[in-house]
Amino acid sequence: MPAPIEDLSRCAIHTFTNKPWSLRQCIDSYQAAGVSGISIWRNVITPSEGGVTPEEAASMLSDAGFSVPALVRGGFFPADEDGKRQSAIDENLRCIDEAKAIGAEMVVLVVGTVPGMPLAEARRQTAEGIAACLEHATACNVKLAIEPLHPMYAADRSCINRMAEAREICEALQNPMLGIAVDVYHVWWDADLQWEIDVAGEQGTLFAFHVCDWRVETRSMLTDRGLMGEGCIDIPTIRGWVEDTGFRGYNEVEIFSEDYWAMDQNEYLQKIVQAYQQSV
Amino acid sequence: MPAPIEDLSRCAIHTFTNKPWSLRQCIDSYQAAGVSGISIWRNVITPSEGGVTPEEAASMLSDAGFSVPALVRGGFFPADEDGKRQSAIDENLRCIDEAKAIGAEMVVLVVGTVPGMPLAEARRQTAEGIAACLEHATACNVKLAIEPLHPMYAADRSCINRMAEAREICEALQNPMLGIAVDVYHVWWDADLQWEIDVAGEQGTLFAFHVCDWRVETRSMLTDRGLMGEGCIDIPTIRGWVEDTGFRGYNEVEIFSEDYWAMDQNEYLQKIVQAYQQSV
Repeated sequence: MPAPIEDLSRCAIHTFTNKPWSLRQCIDSYQAAGVSGISIWRNVITPSEGGVTPEEAASMLSDAGFSVPALVRGGFFPADEDGKRQSAIDENLRCIDEAKAIGAEMVVLVVGTVPGMPLAEARRQTAEGIAACLEHATACNVKLAIEPLHPMYAADRSCINRMAEAREICEALQNPMLGIAVDVYHVWWDADLQWEIDVAGEQGTLFAFHVCDWRVETRSMLTDRGLMGEGCIDIPTIRGWVEDTGFRGYNEVEIFSEDYWAMDQNEYLQKIVQAYQQSV
Repeated sequence: MPAPIEDLSRCAIHTFTNKPWSLRQCIDSYQAAGVSGISIWRNVITPSEGGVTPEEAASMLSDAGFSVPALVRGGFFPADEDGKRQSAIDENLRCIDEAKAIGAEMVVLVVGTVPGMPLAEARRQTAEGIAACLEHATACNVKLAIEPLHPMYAADRSCINRMAEAREICEALQNPMLGIAVDVYHVWWDADLQWEIDVAGEQGTLFAFHVCDWRVETRSMLTDRGLMGEGCIDIPTIRGWVEDTGFRGYNEVEIFSEDYWAMDQNEYLQKIVQAYQQSV
């Protein structure tokens, strides 16, 4: 087991965790709670979706002294047509620009898939799409982090479902700006998890660590994640494996939950902070 | 792609697919539809659950000339206490007796887990439990088939979530009566699937092949499986990999679906037969 969490210095929260809040509300409330890391979902910096502009976000974040591990999310590379694949690449280049504008260390990639397309082909298209973004990512000094998604999302959200498949793309493209975001929700069940984390540490590709919990009686595949400690994931052990590689980045809290979105968000934030200190 | 399905000679149906039916209704209706393979779920041969006795089932199946690839399901080995683990082993020994009584070729093992128990420990207990059943299985000439379950069941139903973990137990125990049941629903997403099927073929552990489909918009993690052709799984390609190993056992139709259980079961059976011929 790793050393217990002592403070909030490595705690970051994803804005989508507090989906009912604007970026302003997130910043003010996280700051009041002593949290100074925030990962930004694109909706809160997209004016057409009710968000501020990336430039406004940059000022707000900088004024409040926040660190931004990630902009979430790019990806969605595979498609049936060349034109659609190019559009996806263009969208990712814009996402990288936004990450640079707000000072985010990385863009998290949910890589996508096409229902019915052979997963091997979707993975090939994913590698091709990522490759087409690396030059711009390097120029902008923004890392790209492939997030393996749980196999229950293999039909329609991601053709990369274990760290192994993310590693294979990293090994093929060999670029210091390309790595992996490890979210315990997606990978906790994998018998190879510790080994893959070790290898990612050795290869310099362990870019991010996301936490939440897997509720034993999961009611929805999308929006029923648990607070840390509410489910069956041994988060401290996995954090220990991650820290054994030398990782000292943020522990990013990323929870999608209809139940928690329905409650008072300030009360919920108190629960998050408590769960972070007790169960991460 | 393998040769198209030409007839129903290798088609078997799991009784739970037609959950509203008794064993009598399953036998009569499958026979009328030209299906002569049936895998039996324990509820239909458990009098306290409204079923017939195993001996009655044996006569009914034999009179109708049915083959029985499997009795479903044993397993559920891991537990917090020694006593519970022994009870699980005893229950599996009874299950093997029932399989012998009805002339089933194998018992399918859904191995179980304990929420919060480290998966490595649950797997160790699983191997231990299986080992304790092999002598009786051999004496009864009943095979044991480990069925890897989808990782979304890792919290509470199975600590074996890929063919790799089933293979490791087979390799450790090295017994000709122990093998693997491959259900496309659970393993279709696995990047190593073709390789694992090849190896299982070489090791003589490819005991069963189960089919249904993964609905792209899955509404329930338990009871929303699709008919073959309704989802995103390329079943013919996987069947091709299985047949390339020399496998000539049954293609077993195993579907859990609230929608289909609610419809007229004879109409549903027609759909099953059509889907089998078109999409397996």
